[in-house]
Amino acid sequence: MSERKEFRELVPPEEAHEAIASLDVGGGTEEVPLREARGRVLAQRVDATLDVPGFDRASMDGYAVRARDTFGAGEADPVVLELSGAVHAGEEPEIRVEEGACAEISTGAVMPEGADAVVMVERTDEVENGIEIRTSLAPGDHVMLAGADVAAGERALGPGTQLTSREIGLLSALGVDSVPVRAKPRVGIVSTGDELVRPGEAVASERGQIYDVNSYTVATAVEEAGGEAVLYPHAGDDYEEMERILTEAAAECDLVLSSGSTSASAVDVIYRVIEDQGELLLHGVAIKPGKPMLVGEFPDSAYVGLPGYPVSALMIFRHFVAGAIRRAAGVPEPPTATVEAEMAVEERYEEGRTRLMPVGILESRGRTLAYPVDKGSGATTSLVEADGIVEVDSDTAYLDPGEPVSVTLFSPDVRPPTVFGVGEDDPTLSNLLDDLDRPRYLAIGGRQGRRRLAQGVPDFAVVTGGSDDIEATELGAWTREWGLVVGSGNPEGIEGLSDLVDRELRFVNRPTDAGLRTTLSKAIEQLAAARGESRTELVERIDGFELAARAQESPARKVAAGGADAGLGLRSTAEKLDLDFVALGEERVRVLANPDRVGKRGVEALKNALANVDPELPGVGR
Amino acid sequence: MSERKEFRELVPPEEAHEAIASLDVGGGTEEVPLREARGRVLAQRVDATLDVPGFDRASMDGYAVRARDTFGAGEADPVVLELSGAVHAGEEPEIRVEEGACAEISTGAVMPEGADAVVMVERTDEVENGIEIRTSLAPGDHVMLAGADVAAGERALGPGTQLTSREIGLLSALGVDSVPVRAKPRVGIVSTGDELVRPGEAVASERGQIYDVNSYTVATAVEEAGGEAVLYPHAGDDYEEMERILTEAAAECDLVLSSGSTSASAVDVIYRVIEDQGELLLHGVAIKPGKPMLVGEFPDSAYVGLPGYPVSALMIFRHFVAGAIRRAAGVPEPPTATVEAEMAVEERYEEGRTRLMPVGILESRGRTLAYPVDKGSGATTSLVEADGIVEVDSDTAYLDPGEPVSVTLFSPDVRPPTVFGVGEDDPTLSNLLDDLDRPRYLAIGGRQGRRRLAQGVPDFAVVTGGSDDIEATELGAWTREWGLVVGSGNPEGIEGLSDLVDRELRFVNRPTDAGLRTTLSKAIEQLAAARGESRTELVERIDGFELAARAQESPARKVAAGGADAGLGLRSTAEKLDLDFVALGEERVRVLANPDRVGKRGVEALKNALANVDPELPGVGR
Repeated sequence: MSERKEFRELVPPEEAHEAIASLDVGGGTEEVPLREARGRVLAQRVDATLDVPGFDRASMDGYAVRARDTFGAGEADPVVLELSGAVHAGEEPEIRVEEGACAEISTGAVMPEGADAVVMVERTDEVENGIEIRTSLAPGDHVMLAGADVAAGERALGPGTQLTSREIGLLSALGVDSVPVRAKPRVGIVSTGDELVRPGEAVASERGQIYDVNSYTVATAVEEAGGEAVLYPHAGDDYEEMERILTEAAAECDLVLSSGSTSASAVDVIYRVIEDQGELLLHGVAIKPGKPMLVGEFPDSAYVGLPGYPVSALMIFRHFVAGAIRRAAGVPEPPTATVEAEMAVEERYEEGRTRLMPVGILESRGRTLAYPVDKGSGATTSLVEADGIVEVDSDTAYLDPGEPVSVTLFSPDVRPPTVFGVGEDDPTLSNLLDDLDRPRYLAIGGRQGRRRLAQGVPDFAVVTGGSDDIEATELGAWTREWGLVVGSGNPEGIEGLSDLVDRELRFVNRPTDAGLRTTLSKAIEQLAAARGESRTELVERIDGFELAARAQESPARKVAAGGADAGLGLRSTAEKLDLDFVALGEERVRVLANPDRVGKRGVEALKNALANVDPELPGVGR
Repeated sequence: MSERKEFRELVPPEEAHEAIASLDVGGGTEEVPLREARGRVLAQRVDATLDVPGFDRASMDGYAVRARDTFGAGEADPVVLELSGAVHAGEEPEIRVEEGACAEISTGAVMPEGADAVVMVERTDEVENGIEIRTSLAPGDHVMLAGADVAAGERALGPGTQLTSREIGLLSALGVDSVPVRAKPRVGIVSTGDELVRPGEAVASERGQIYDVNSYTVATAVEEAGGEAVLYPHAGDDYEEMERILTEAAAECDLVLSSGSTSASAVDVIYRVIEDQGELLLHGVAIKPGKPMLVGEFPDSAYVGLPGYPVSALMIFRHFVAGAIRRAAGVPEPPTATVEAEMAVEERYEEGRTRLMPVGILESRGRTLAYPVDKGSGATTSLVEADGIVEVDSDTAYLDPGEPVSVTLFSPDVRPPTVFGVGEDDPTLSNLLDDLDRPRYLAIGGRQGRRRLAQGVPDFAVVTGGSDDIEATELGAWTREWGLVVGSGNPEGIEGLSDLVDRELRFVNRPTDAGLRTTLSKAIEQLAAARGESRTELVERIDGFELAARAQESPARKVAAGGADAGLGLRSTAEKLDLDFVALGEERVRVLANPDRVGKRGVEALKNALANVDPELPGVGR
């Protein structure tokens, strides 16, 4: 048994950076065909081994001459030279140009012996006794001498050069067809958790299975950093299995990344495997969310354990690991990987340890704004709702609105959305968004949307109902038909709200943030008033009134699955899911813009798209 | 015979843009595995087809409880619940949590029936009769409800989304293992010219063969723009062959690009093939260097003919064609593809047509400077010496120093060099440059280097000799031993300069811009003085004194090849090429910086590297 190290204290983030920098993450050299070398990094200097061009080369179509034969010639005073023959590109000259003679020559052809200049065809004429030359030439005119472009022995490209079309062009000219490049570090990825299923396979929700998010996310992030990702099978928290998979990965890769150890027991198993098979350098970093981070070494491979939640795993990867892979691959960090922004809102954080704060970014009047995204670390949607990380110092308990922050993007290709909206979940809106370039929309419900718009972060909000207690510019509106989505053929014969109150029917509602829920509540109030009863009495008699399904289609889908008799929803949803619909009314859906952002290009594009929606047409509207 | 269209006039660049925009360059849809989808662009919206999570999920390790059983509990006043069993991640719960009971649960596990909250393990203790709970919970605490992350029917990602690690993570969570993406347009590349040889094959310089530069350059640029490049064999200027290759490419590709028609006859053949097999839309654009550009259509493919010279081909590709490929692929132009710069020098151009001016860029005190690169269009080294294009309007005859220009980079990965130097070709310097990150160095000779440094463009110049008539900061210096490089074993028994003057020896010199040539000339002057003769008399007796080989190693290589008896060069070069050396003296090589740039990071790095060179050691110095 190896002696167990004690890791009682979380180490400061700098120590984690140092521990990772001390790891050997590969970085050898390999030879790749030139045709596949795009984006790779030269491992060695490439000097020219031949002259380019390899011969004195005509750089014009015309006639090869002895320059001194043309001295004094001009438009008014041409000379006539005897035509001795012709040289074409790709041919060995079979003639010699003697005094008083010339040879037809095409661009790129070898200069024949004797000739030292080319006269362009436009300055000549064929005449009876030869070629009339109407200009005088100096030796070397329109000739590219051998080696004039690049000569044998000259430095062509230095080590560390990243190869783009340009460098590949120069290497082609040198006749190089394969180049020594920095090897991509091989990075093995092991997601742990008995509950994981790879995308594409069937997931058994009743057994708590979920799709594995980290394997593909981290693999892609490894590739973005210049590494080669190798996926290994999922490991459960069985010691033997974990040991087998981790040691296999360690034997085949330069770096092994594990992630997804959502339970304490799995972490403990990994911990023991690393200690038994290699060395654990640190366990736990004083950073949020890096607490469970592990750094270690197998005999022939480095090891980093990432947190299990996808956003946390990606944040820790970007913050601690991506740089090590890039350095090993010799790949520079693209300048677009970091964005300078200003906080859009205030943010308090008083835990006294460094925080990697996930943020979304947006553009407003030429500035980039950042706002915290914190949906709870288990949410995979945060992956696309956050754009990157702001590192907040452990001493910083408060960030002011307007405070400058540096955002490390999740990948260098991430760009701010052209337009950022929040609010009601609505199918007409979803179609509208399809026509926009890179919009971001968070369906947080109309009530929340109105609140966020008032706080000034989003560009627009989608709300229901007419009353505006906030300052906003209406960009457009449409009408949607709402009611009860019921089974196909309306098996329970539901006719209206009264049936929900008076009969034993299983209903599914929407949450209080949804505009549709407010609309339903108003309808129940009217019904109560008409019946002379209280709203509360009616609500208490609806089985499932408090059963709120988060998304717009969720109640209808519950009906489709046989889990309810009626769900709050839209006619368009019922039609989409082949269900029946009991109409209860119409409501206005309105798109409100932040008045400061109406000139923003993305907001204008949204306004233009809205102009195509028939405001009176209920339903999807197109 | 089809009727030939007349293209007497060059069309304005806008018409060429319009003609290319009118072409159909592909842009279909294909399904790719998620694991290979990085960088691709979604062709359709992806809505969630399942709830994530698919079940009510514990988000902490702890105990699943009925929240109301914990009401009023706290540190001072714990409740004890009976332990009914355990649920682990990936298992179907086999128990139901009854009133007064709880179940051990791990993060990610399915909430057992009856339970509605999870208490974290840190707030509990195992006691004799069950589990002691030291906090009170609300329903939903530490539980992620089914669909809370994303619900079936919700919009997940819009069409046009470029897929990075983040989006691939979200798609993984949805169980998607293949996605509909925009197809990459297939772009066929046909280089024309009988003289072309593909890199890696042997080139017969005596027959005027050269390596094909455009095929790989344009192919790589096509890939940088999001297309798929398909290389076809070279076509000579034979009609049958050209027709066969072009129609094959047109049948297999969305777009065919030809290039490399260096002779007028080849252009004429292409012209006829396009007219016979398809339609020629335009021939010749009023832009430098786009004059020979062709735009046309085959029945099932678009066609663009690029100029033959590599830099011209890449410029026309970037300016006219890359955007069409990107649009067809749905790939946005990265923000790094354009750089705002200021002219470093003045530039005059008065041809009255739009000019695509190749420029190099460099950084100086936070600003980006652009300077024209014009080595003659045949030079392939311009590919790596220029970084991009400035489009200069036909009305603009003059660009002032400091004038703002917009540089379209040759590829979005191009970045300014960290340090930019010019001057003497020297092996010690070449080794020094290997230690720097992305330097650019143009070996234009010490004399030219001094001149350019005085003009203010480069950061540093490498010169020989001691006199400085320019303002500069010396960063470092070393000594090199110069003399005559002679055949191995010194077969002619050459002992010094006098042998060149007095005997019939074939000599190879360096050009007047090279510092070494100046040094030689001074040595000849001293010899002349010692002999009481004039310098001119001596020089006239040296066979080959005027035969100047451009690069540092070129004279030595000529000796090695048997083409000369002695060449001007360095001891280190003789050693490298296994030749003998007749020492004639030592000279100082000095690195001079632009005084305004000594604080620039790349200049500092050069200075630090220079500190490791022994200034007194002749030769390579390391």
